[in-house]
Amino acid sequence: MAFEELWAEVAPIGRSAETGGYFRQPYAGAELELRDWFRGAAQQRGFKVETDQIGNLVAVWRVPMISYTGLDPGKGVMVGSHLDSVIDGGAYDGALGVVSAFAAVDLLRERGFAPARPILIGAFAEEEGSRFGSACLSSNLAMGATTWETAEQLQDADGIYLPDALARADLGDVQPLALAQRVSAFVELHIEQGRHLVDHHKPIGVGAGIWPHGRYRFEFSGVANHAGTTPMEDRADPMLTFAMTVLAANKKARAMGQRATFGRVTVSPNSTNSVPSRVTAWLDARADTAEAVSELVSEVARLATERAERDGTNVAMRVDSVAGSVDFDDDLARWIAFEHDGEDWPIIPTAAGHDAGVMSASGIPTTMLFVRNPTGVSHSPAEHVDIADALAGVEALAETITRLAS
Amino acid sequence: MAFEELWAEVAPIGRSAETGGYFRQPYAGAELELRDWFRGAAQQRGFKVETDQIGNLVAVWRVPMISYTGLDPGKGVMVGSHLDSVIDGGAYDGALGVVSAFAAVDLLRERGFAPARPILIGAFAEEEGSRFGSACLSSNLAMGATTWETAEQLQDADGIYLPDALARADLGDVQPLALAQRVSAFVELHIEQGRHLVDHHKPIGVGAGIWPHGRYRFEFSGVANHAGTTPMEDRADPMLTFAMTVLAANKKARAMGQRATFGRVTVSPNSTNSVPSRVTAWLDARADTAEAVSELVSEVARLATERAERDGTNVAMRVDSVAGSVDFDDDLARWIAFEHDGEDWPIIPTAAGHDAGVMSASGIPTTMLFVRNPTGVSHSPAEHVDIADALAGVEALAETITRLAS
Repeated sequence: MAFEELWAEVAPIGRSAETGGYFRQPYAGAELELRDWFRGAAQQRGFKVETDQIGNLVAVWRVPMISYTGLDPGKGVMVGSHLDSVIDGGAYDGALGVVSAFAAVDLLRERGFAPARPILIGAFAEEEGSRFGSACLSSNLAMGATTWETAEQLQDADGIYLPDALARADLGDVQPLALAQRVSAFVELHIEQGRHLVDHHKPIGVGAGIWPHGRYRFEFSGVANHAGTTPMEDRADPMLTFAMTVLAANKKARAMGQRATFGRVTVSPNSTNSVPSRVTAWLDARADTAEAVSELVSEVARLATERAERDGTNVAMRVDSVAGSVDFDDDLARWIAFEHDGEDWPIIPTAAGHDAGVMSASGIPTTMLFVRNPTGVSHSPAEHVDIADALAGVEALAETITRLAS
Repeated sequence: MAFEELWAEVAPIGRSAETGGYFRQPYAGAELELRDWFRGAAQQRGFKVETDQIGNLVAVWRVPMISYTGLDPGKGVMVGSHLDSVIDGGAYDGALGVVSAFAAVDLLRERGFAPARPILIGAFAEEEGSRFGSACLSSNLAMGATTWETAEQLQDADGIYLPDALARADLGDVQPLALAQRVSAFVELHIEQGRHLVDHHKPIGVGAGIWPHGRYRFEFSGVANHAGTTPMEDRADPMLTFAMTVLAANKKARAMGQRATFGRVTVSPNSTNSVPSRVTAWLDARADTAEAVSELVSEVARLATERAERDGTNVAMRVDSVAGSVDFDDDLARWIAFEHDGEDWPIIPTAAGHDAGVMSASGIPTTMLFVRNPTGVSHSPAEHVDIADALAGVEALAETITRLAS
């Protein structure tokens, strides 16, 4: 099936008419519709679908014979991405990789390509961490990088525990996917989250690696009080400490040429006429080296603590997650990038986390294909891919599968 | 019934074991329990209970004869306060006034006092605006200062419209209370929200008036984007503009000796790995004159707009409510304050809004009795009244009723 037809099936699912953004948080609503779509697409092609306990999906194009051309002959080539989105996110992040995988396989079958090893199309669950707060949760679980004991403690914003959400979603028969034993190489196609390709006039790039990345929970606590009757001097207002910390993080990240963001905040009691008792905010920090991430976060924490003394408040920081830098397989990236119409595709890094990072860290030769994003914008309804570039992405993925599965 | 017994009935209702704070938002849960308690307390005393469409409650101690001592003989004396609380608020704000009203009436009946006019015990609904965002909503509606057409548009945080919330609460037979026609004087007893009485070693004070007060909704909008991949220079991050505005409001209020608070914030999409598209925050501003409120708010808006230009964001301010200053009835305050054990009670202003302000603005002679609060803290679980002061409050209210209803 042509990419356009497949895309038209997926594009309306989880889209808000109000914002134009996507709400595909895992294990409910639109995301369950996307799961049905995935199963249907696999069944139409005669591919068997497998699901594990956390809801990762794999559709397998099985082959009758096995070749012996370098990669482990018993293993398959996996392509794919994820189907969930951030809250009010864009259409392409994740979904483009899964839809392009089906379209690339259709293209190869039309052309009569007979793969020498199985092709696995994958859709990881809860990649964004938009419901349970833990990015790449499902690939981490599938690869044993996170334990079930940890995952079982996760709650969503409504206090629903992960196992209960999974039980309600009714994922059907589940079994371990054993990807470590079955996958010889993983390639994730993804919309570029930045402007490298736009600036260099290239539709396609190959992933070099992922910047190190940390998430830190700052809890600013003070004393709730009446907003009218409490003199400014008598307050212990954690909103002030938070506000200064936001500005300090921005300033430090700019100065270092790195990235720091406070994008998530909860306030208690969150009432107009009360000085808050507590402001909880999450810092997302990324840099080109792990040392730079540490330096950035330490400085933000130091400035927050200093200001807290002045405000009569307290600040406590907790590390929610830290991901070291990921270097994708260098040989694989070069092989994939090598000579397409006489030119190599550029090999570029990314500051975004991906399931590809988890797969790579688990020892599976991994890389990514990036597709040009004219706005550079990501995690937003403004995210965009031109249809010509999307088709170039499908072609690139087909070429990549051909190289890896011949 | 003694104050202590009445208080013990009310104190557990809506209290969170976790925070020690109270959750008595209107028309559900604990607040409905308090309504049942109010009806029961009135019935035990043979008082008729009336309810209007918005859920204001009045219990009427009717009298067989009418005296002619100055006040309109056809009208009654109303005492009371409200039963709702802010989110995670204290035990006393509102409830102390209602419980003390019943206790004062019991004291007067024990003493054989025969009122020359009806005594009305009132409990206004949604005084705090903690559910529908509009403070003194129900007294404003009862006195015709707000229209039903406006109130019907109000939604709570779950998107439930006010009329639906009222229908679900099933308030029983409702009828207009016609307070303007029935009340010759209103006295609201309330915990002091500040430290005037503590600092001056007095258990009881009389209200002089209420500071002018405004609530302003600031909408900071920018462009949602990926927190990892978007360079700091390419962002339009409304969290920065908000943060600067918080600090500017604080600084300006300090400099002017007035009050400014950002206690309520919502962020969209509120995800750790996204630059926000929108931050909505409410400014609570109060000052000793209406001019000072205007000056304070204009300056905050100006600085916010200036910073928005720098951040590439937008800021829009909307006035949610503005209450002018209220001067309670001067003669009434002096009469009530005059000579108790040889001393006058102090007459003090407050920066907090109250139903008493609405009653006063409607032309009903009104004042307040404040009871000492050793912490000075308000709208917080840390709010407190010593039992000796609470009993002094009941006695003060009984003396006040005696003066007004003889």
